[in-house]
Amino acid sequence: MDHSAKWKGFSRTMRVDEGLQVIFGNTTTPIKIESVYTEYSTNRIIAEDVVAPLNLPGFRRSAMDGYAIMAEDTYGASSTNPLTLTIQGYVEIGDTNAPVLNPNHAIRISTGAPLPKDATAVIKIEDCEEVDETTLEVYSSISRGKNVAEMDEDVAKGTTIYTKNHKIGPWDIAMLTSLGFETIDVLKLPKIAILSTGSELIPLSETPKTGLVYDSNRPALAAWIRDIGADLILNDSCEDDPQSIKEELLDIARKADLIITTGGTSVGKHDYMAEVIKDIGTIWTHGIAIRPGKPLILGEINGENKKTPIVALPGYPLAAFLNFELFVVPLLDKWMRKETEYRYTKVKLAQPIPSSTGVRDFVRLVNTSEGAKVLRITGAGILSSLVKADFLLEIPEDVEGYENGQEIEVRDLRG
Amino acid sequence: MDHSAKWKGFSRTMRVDEGLQVIFGNTTTPIKIESVYTEYSTNRIIAEDVVAPLNLPGFRRSAMDGYAIMAEDTYGASSTNPLTLTIQGYVEIGDTNAPVLNPNHAIRISTGAPLPKDATAVIKIEDCEEVDETTLEVYSSISRGKNVAEMDEDVAKGTTIYTKNHKIGPWDIAMLTSLGFETIDVLKLPKIAILSTGSELIPLSETPKTGLVYDSNRPALAAWIRDIGADLILNDSCEDDPQSIKEELLDIARKADLIITTGGTSVGKHDYMAEVIKDIGTIWTHGIAIRPGKPLILGEINGENKKTPIVALPGYPLAAFLNFELFVVPLLDKWMRKETEYRYTKVKLAQPIPSSTGVRDFVRLVNTSEGAKVLRITGAGILSSLVKADFLLEIPEDVEGYENGQEIEVRDLRG
Repeated sequence: MDHSAKWKGFSRTMRVDEGLQVIFGNTTTPIKIESVYTEYSTNRIIAEDVVAPLNLPGFRRSAMDGYAIMAEDTYGASSTNPLTLTIQGYVEIGDTNAPVLNPNHAIRISTGAPLPKDATAVIKIEDCEEVDETTLEVYSSISRGKNVAEMDEDVAKGTTIYTKNHKIGPWDIAMLTSLGFETIDVLKLPKIAILSTGSELIPLSETPKTGLVYDSNRPALAAWIRDIGADLILNDSCEDDPQSIKEELLDIARKADLIITTGGTSVGKHDYMAEVIKDIGTIWTHGIAIRPGKPLILGEINGENKKTPIVALPGYPLAAFLNFELFVVPLLDKWMRKETEYRYTKVKLAQPIPSSTGVRDFVRLVNTSEGAKVLRITGAGILSSLVKADFLLEIPEDVEGYENGQEIEVRDLRG
Repeated sequence: MDHSAKWKGFSRTMRVDEGLQVIFGNTTTPIKIESVYTEYSTNRIIAEDVVAPLNLPGFRRSAMDGYAIMAEDTYGASSTNPLTLTIQGYVEIGDTNAPVLNPNHAIRISTGAPLPKDATAVIKIEDCEEVDETTLEVYSSISRGKNVAEMDEDVAKGTTIYTKNHKIGPWDIAMLTSLGFETIDVLKLPKIAILSTGSELIPLSETPKTGLVYDSNRPALAAWIRDIGADLILNDSCEDDPQSIKEELLDIARKADLIITTGGTSVGKHDYMAEVIKDIGTIWTHGIAIRPGKPLILGEINGENKKTPIVALPGYPLAAFLNFELFVVPLLDKWMRKETEYRYTKVKLAQPIPSSTGVRDFVRLVNTSEGAKVLRITGAGILSSLVKADFLLEIPEDVEGYENGQEIEVRDLRG
């Protein structure tokens, strides 16, 4: 292999917005449907319009603690001219057989209890008084339907309750289970596979030695994908061997909706990712105009049964995470109808920050008493720069940097 | 039982801020520790300070693709006066035995590969050229340490990487696994138990009939608690029977950090929750000045081994959810070091909204072309009002309402 030829570097890098167009333009939201228990459907996307199979409430019930009466039996009653009704037992919440109300009678009733047959209203406790166990004095004239929840007051049978693509929240689970939906049809979660590559990577069970490092991108990205809520179907690592990578990718492409790899994306001797993808699929773009994080590959793998998009991240943690956040998070958020939400804050710079145009710079800042300063430890390989940083400053491609004392908006990374 | 005596209503209701003081003042954050796999520790709280057990990187390595050299061998080199070095093989990323570099020699090296013994710098590809397989022409004088990542450049062994109570994000998982932490000590998740009470409640497997309703609060609150990330240890329902409720609560109190119940909190004949809690624990407050949602009980159960706080929510869904959001969510967020984040938006009212002082009103609004209007279907029992509402307006205790056309801030409930 020609050592220097492989090292020529990137002829052209793509701007972030072009890269986003490429990945959004070349992929479609996976829309397979599955049935899940309603109680476990939070944050899932409803797959089909949902029509109420029954009325809510399913029966006429009392909306108050009071007395079920015939409205006309109270007509003319007032505090100066009370009428009397005979108390005829009670009906409680949970009773399934409400008694039949006789004229000029009143039945004690709890909120939520079924209205006795022939009752037309409920009189509140404040509007009457039990003078003895069987006699109720009524101080107010009550109109028909007063304090009664009609059978379809909340939801009428046949109403469309949700249209498809609605995202389920806890309140929706109350509505769906009230309507008797034990299960609900939702979109399947996108299936994501992670493959970290690198002959230097060792699992956490091994003892490190010179030349080898713990495989840390894999668990971090796995945790991130689980936190987003997608379905992580594979979480594996692989040596820097083109044939092994190829076989793994072809296998993964059959099952996953999106493949994420790390490592091997630069233009060094052992960077096989580009040639592997070219060989078994298509490269949409190689090299993105950000710093750090340039060696990103976007493309797809021709699986046996379908084409599967691949985001091949650089191996350096900071480069991997910035690219993941720029390209994978918005794609998964779109697929899962989530909103990408970051916290931003304004800071005053305590130093000038130069930047060259045409590249999007990501600068880690720390908070000091004088203002925000650049974290001195930098480099795509430096993990602690992300852990120590208070702010992440994204310098757009057309900005030449910022001056000392300037107020700028930054991502707030503080817990 | 004296029917009317039980129906006297609330003598006094507590303001929301007083209620919050009561629950925050009477409870302490549970702080038991457990060890979890680092990869599954996202959003968990670090229990003890974490000290780096090794250097990061663990060996001197190249920060560039280039050639490992002795810096002094390049002194005096320039593009007009190149020096030549003999190429002596290569060292790749993942190699565990770097060769020893001879004076006036250069070893090809990849980014991340261990630096050969006696090498003091790495010269970039752009600053030299291979004239043949064994001869490298050097065009630049390189200082010692150039393009070399020192052993503790990222993290020095013995450094405190995290102080306790830090919340773990995906980036922290990369740091922790880079340092070899296969597991990490974190605070246990708070254990929450839900008990819905009501003789009218039926499970989703049954067919509804007059007087009975599906138990919908329980799955909705269960989903909400899981979404917050707490540990739901019990998710059960119970008849309106004081003895059964008592036995259940005493059993739960032994295991849970917080008990949530629904139903039986008002002052009707079958509302047993207050007398049960008084009997086996303490009531801190009964009745909160909000509308809807007044019949809330805050207190604690004297379990066999410990006192366990209880939030007894009203049975009506809207009342239950508003109280859950007002009192339980902030408590769990505090315990789990989360920030409660709601989306707010400004709307213009298309109608006046009256409100009485001393009570916090929760009004559901819909978005119309003329502005925000009150959702006509209201009532604590009405689920659809939450599902159909676009905005939730919280009217503080000291506000007498709003005028038509007024611009106000509201919770945005839209997906």
